[in-house]
Amino acid sequence: MPMPTVKIAPSILAADFADLGAECRAVEAQGADWVHLDVMDGHFVPNLTMGPAICKALRPHISTVMDVHLMIAPVDPFIAAFAEAGADILSVHPEAGPHLHRTLQAIRAAGVRAGVALNPATPAAAVSEVLDLVDLICVMTVNPGFGGQKFIASQLPKISELRRMIGDRAIHLQVDGGVDAATAPRVAEAGADVLVAGSAVFRGGSAADPAAYGENIRAIRAAAEGVRT
Amino acid sequence: MPMPTVKIAPSILAADFADLGAECRAVEAQGADWVHLDVMDGHFVPNLTMGPAICKALRPHISTVMDVHLMIAPVDPFIAAFAEAGADILSVHPEAGPHLHRTLQAIRAAGVRAGVALNPATPAAAVSEVLDLVDLICVMTVNPGFGGQKFIASQLPKISELRRMIGDRAIHLQVDGGVDAATAPRVAEAGADVLVAGSAVFRGGSAADPAAYGENIRAIRAAAEGVRT
Amino acid sequence: MPMPTVKIAPSILAADFADLGAECRAVEAQGADWVHLDVMDGHFVPNLTMGPAICKALRPHISTVMDVHLMIAPVDPFIAAFAEAGADILSVHPEAGPHLHRTLQAIRAAGVRAGVALNPATPAAAVSEVLDLVDLICVMTVNPGFGGQKFIASQLPKISELRRMIGDRAIHLQVDGGVDAATAPRVAEAGADVLVAGSAVFRGGSAADPAAYGENIRAIRAAAEGVRT
Amino acid sequence: MPMPTVKIAPSILAADFADLGAECRAVEAQGADWVHLDVMDGHFVPNLTMGPAICKALRPHISTVMDVHLMIAPVDPFIAAFAEAGADILSVHPEAGPHLHRTLQAIRAAGVRAGVALNPATPAAAVSEVLDLVDLICVMTVNPGFGGQKFIASQLPKISELRRMIGDRAIHLQVDGGVDAATAPRVAEAGADVLVAGSAVFRGGSAADPAAYGENIRAIRAAAEGVRT
Amino acid sequence: MPMPTVKIAPSILAADFADLGAECRAVEAQGADWVHLDVMDGHFVPNLTMGPAICKALRPHISTVMDVHLMIAPVDPFIAAFAEAGADILSVHPEAGPHLHRTLQAIRAAGVRAGVALNPATPAAAVSEVLDLVDLICVMTVNPGFGGQKFIASQLPKISELRRMIGDRAIHLQVDGGVDAATAPRVAEAGADVLVAGSAVFRGGSAADPAAYGENIRAIRAAAEGVRT
Amino acid sequence: MPMPTVKIAPSILAADFADLGAECRAVEAQGADWVHLDVMDGHFVPNLTMGPAICKALRPHISTVMDVHLMIAPVDPFIAAFAEAGADILSVHPEAGPHLHRTLQAIRAAGVRAGVALNPATPAAAVSEVLDLVDLICVMTVNPGFGGQKFIASQLPKISELRRMIGDRAIHLQVDGGVDAATAPRVAEAGADVLVAGSAVFRGGSAADPAAYGENIRAIRAAAEGVRT
Repeated sequence: MPMPTVKIAPSILAADFADLGAECRAVEAQGADWVHLDVMDGHFVPNLTMGPAICKALRPHISTVMDVHLMIAPVDPFIAAFAEAGADILSVHPEAGPHLHRTLQAIRAAGVRAGVALNPATPAAAVSEVLDLVDLICVMTVNPGFGGQKFIASQLPKISELRRMIGDRAIHLQVDGGVDAATAPRVAEAGADVLVAGSAVFRGGSAADPAAYGENIRAIRAAAEGVRT
Repeated sequence: MPMPTVKIAPSILAADFADLGAECRAVEAQGADWVHLDVMDGHFVPNLTMGPAICKALRPHISTVMDVHLMIAPVDPFIAAFAEAGADILSVHPEAGPHLHRTLQAIRAAGVRAGVALNPATPAAAVSEVLDLVDLICVMTVNPGFGGQKFIASQLPKISELRRMIGDRAIHLQVDGGVDAATAPRVAEAGADVLVAGSAVFRGGSAADPAAYGENIRAIRAAAEGVRT
Repeated sequence: MPMPTVKIAPSILAADFADLGAECRAVEAQGADWVHLDVMDGHFVPNLTMGPAICKALRPHISTVMDVHLMIAPVDPFIAAFAEAGADILSVHPEAGPHLHRTLQAIRAAGVRAGVALNPATPAAAVSEVLDLVDLICVMTVNPGFGGQKFIASQLPKISELRRMIGDRAIHLQVDGGVDAATAPRVAEAGADVLVAGSAVFRGGSAADPAAYGENIRAIRAAAEGVRT
Repeated sequence: MPMPTVKIAPSILAADFADLGAECRAVEAQGADWVHLDVMDGHFVPNLTMGPAICKALRPHISTVMDVHLMIAPVDPFIAAFAEAGADILSVHPEAGPHLHRTLQAIRAAGVRAGVALNPATPAAAVSEVLDLVDLICVMTVNPGFGGQKFIASQLPKISELRRMIGDRAIHLQVDGGVDAATAPRVAEAGADVLVAGSAVFRGGSAADPAAYGENIRAIRAAAEGVRT
Repeated sequence: MPMPTVKIAPSILAADFADLGAECRAVEAQGADWVHLDVMDGHFVPNLTMGPAICKALRPHISTVMDVHLMIAPVDPFIAAFAEAGADILSVHPEAGPHLHRTLQAIRAAGVRAGVALNPATPAAAVSEVLDLVDLICVMTVNPGFGGQKFIASQLPKISELRRMIGDRAIHLQVDGGVDAATAPRVAEAGADVLVAGSAVFRGGSAADPAAYGENIRAIRAAAEGVRT
Repeated sequence: MPMPTVKIAPSILAADFADLGAECRAVEAQGADWVHLDVMDGHFVPNLTMGPAICKALRPHISTVMDVHLMIAPVDPFIAAFAEAGADILSVHPEAGPHLHRTLQAIRAAGVRAGVALNPATPAAAVSEVLDLVDLICVMTVNPGFGGQKFIASQLPKISELRRMIGDRAIHLQVDGGVDAATAPRVAEAGADVLVAGSAVFRGGSAADPAAYGENIRAIRAAAEGVRT
């Protein structure tokens, strides 16, 4: 099976929070395939970022895919709010509670595509019983919710293992954490097709002067796709 | 003792989250005395809004007072982050944990003014032992973190009671919830001097066309100050 | 103001759980004014008893008042289920969470009468800010959710204090714990008008032979009302 | 090894809670092999059902096997109460806490047979280290504690995998969720020998007119055993 | 009523944890009236110190009063262990859970004297309903479980208020936090009769050379009693 | 690859808590290779033992390796304190939270060797993604934090499996629980190289008369090494 095209999903965690609508429009204009939103509650992870009201406010400014990563626990009480906010994809963590299967069912029942994100210590087997319920599997290559981290290379074999588990299912394999032009080839080669990148996309530019966003996106994309020829 | 001047603190919960920097500048330009930020974690209250990164991003856009209301539990692990984000005032809830005195000490030790916000069911006596540690007491006139609520008039005697407890201390008495031109005279008469208002300020305007913000602020202020002549 | 008539509310915690419908019909036929259901979740209190499905199943067997005492935390996620189960009164604990006012609003918004139950160590002042939102205040004269307890006489002054706080409001003052013909006069004299009784009602009888229920109810009622003449 | 005989375990969650003693006697008279009790605490699962007092009250009405499924967390503080209530089997969840091995030891030390129930997303490997401590493994084919669900067919390979892991150990392999005459053959073929069924048993009958219970039980049993000839 | 004699209770938190038995014997030999043990669980307070096994090991080395301050939540599961360890007094916090009355009953039922310790922000009214169940009330004059704190003078009126509430009941009024020869007169004058002191007792000495312990104890005692003549 | 030399790590949980410094020196003088400290918080496990202050006090009395086993949750807030206390090794549990990888990173970043301890029900696969971050893997052969337990022989295959997973990595394989001269050969044969032992080391001796400690240590060592010749 041919490898899928690589998609670049800038995380707005690295954008200017004072100007998010313009930032979303700018990265899309510069070639972003998806826009990635990191929701943290200060409980599942030790940082607190944004909730459904911000997602809803950004919806009109995102014309590609609003890809929302929920680093919260419990997650079920918030599914309706994020669905109503317009999320296209909602990803949740198996480490966040005992009812992963139910949560994924609930996300799909709300008309949203469902994803599972795995913390670095979590084996790939954690998704073995929900492969029929997910549209995306995300491998965290940093620990979510902690600052100043580097790409965790030990996750590469897990990416490969998940690619094999996915087989010919229509499931995206996303990588999130420390992705830039240097690491992109490694994760793409291992099998990832959606690359979340934060500062690697937003550095050097701004919503008012976004050319650097485009250069950054193109550099990551080229690096990732280079390994596939 | 003469009543203090009334201050109007628009809550950006009612602003456009896609354009927050401009919204902050606009309400200040239109006469806001403070800018009020509502931080919710989905645990102390059932809504999740924003965290320290957003506060930090808005700091350059706020030249008056950044007034941050923490509806989170536990709160202590986040004090340093909000102080570093540039908060001028951090208000916390006595209902959010067993160590209110310590939390207030820690806020002041971080160089930030300290506030206490009381849920509607909490008696005024909850602050009796921390009057020497606070710069602001906030009476919630709606239940924090829940949507679609009306002003709770039963809180008026509590406002008056707190005004008496404050005496000649330099403590602001804030009211938050359902404040508009109709309710402002009642809370001002009871003794409040800082009025948080959300949709009552932001309705009818936008950062691009903010004249209504100014009209709304003036209307609330006039209503509040009318009772003091 | 004349003292209200005393109501006797048998708690089915002392009935035969294998035959609850018949038990409810029997105590009502024998003179019970209300039927009292004790809901415990093993978290707010260390016992686990019953949930909304049992209340719903008993609804057709209760023609007086279904008085449901929620010893659970959090309580808000269950209000809709107990309202839909047909509860006439839902009582909650101020010690169970930070949002008592909101919970009481939500109970009334669901069309149910709202009560507040106070643990023995909780001062009467805990209800001072919600008197306009409650239809019933319950003084626990044992610690809820623990077995084998005796009537706590130190609660009598609290009952009197609450009677004074209630004034001429239409609020029932209920007592729950260790009530029998010996203690009933004391709580009635202090001001209680609804007496929950468990084994003091159900002992000596059964749904098939309920005469003792009637004798027990009459004895408690007579003892309680004797102090009022 | 020949497949064990199929046992049918009606769940009284689908019975009339107002008349549970009679319901238990009726399903047993109509052919039930076990009686299944679903204990939920509103914390491990979002529903609250019944606790040890109800189990104890039903004990005299159950002459087969009282099979108690604990959907609670933590579970250890309740083991003594359920043992004292007369449970024959206590099943617990590996997702409910970090000390599964200890819990199983404690159940057996209390003289009760021990079971492990697996949520749909939990891989079979979760029981690999406790096979010597369990008398029953239960595969949930709906998500426990949520209403209105359908049989989750993706669990069939897990049932088969567990049958292989069990080998010749004396461990029952139970299936719980959406079992009826249509799904029974599939789970039986995969290796299950105890089938929990709720509405599929209780529909169409009542304790007073239980003939339908018998028909339903016989239909499920026939369907399950049909695949074994 | 004459003021009771002042008792000095050295807290072994300031002793050498490598030599606790000798430290206990040394402070007693040097005049300590009680020995005070600070139990912290890292949850109710952010520090973790010691548990029942250490208390039990120290019991043979304490011939006065083993005064154990439980800064833990929940507390009920540990009462039996601390009673069995030989505690003479067990003090608990009203802020640590909803069942203070029950906890105090349980402590006394275990044959141990019961105390209540109040965090600095907690009003004296928190003990109003349990005065008949306590042998000791402790006013925290630092926030428990946090390091490097100074005496909180705002607690002095609370000490006086509690002395009035105690009246002629046989209840000790203890003060814990920042007590030394400088602050002892103030707390003694306000009505305290048991003074916990840590480094103010242990500084300058050791179990091998404990003379400084005696000097420190005598200095604190003299300072405290000086105000009573 | 030749089997590594067996190390004996006495757990001071079985020593005299009133005299811990002398106990540490005594076991080291009698041949202990490491000293093992069991930290329990009463939450992750149902026992509460000791915290960082005790570790710090013992540091000068331990000249071999201070091996600290953290049976606490959450663990991250305590890493700095235990590192500052002088721990050489900090072991944590994968069952204690969702961020095992991050915790191990943080331990190493604090300059301490990192270990992972597995509860009996936890499969070996729980460490598969963190083998590059650990210096020690500990197999619990009793359930941690519960008293009066026997060696769980079913863990032997897990020890062997982990030995294979470790391969030629420089990772210690520790066993903790019920280790004595009778069980030592079995765990050593399975592949363990660090044996924690409590009462099996300390019984029969004291810090003042420690000869039995030496005999006990030699007996365990001889039994363990006997299988390797």
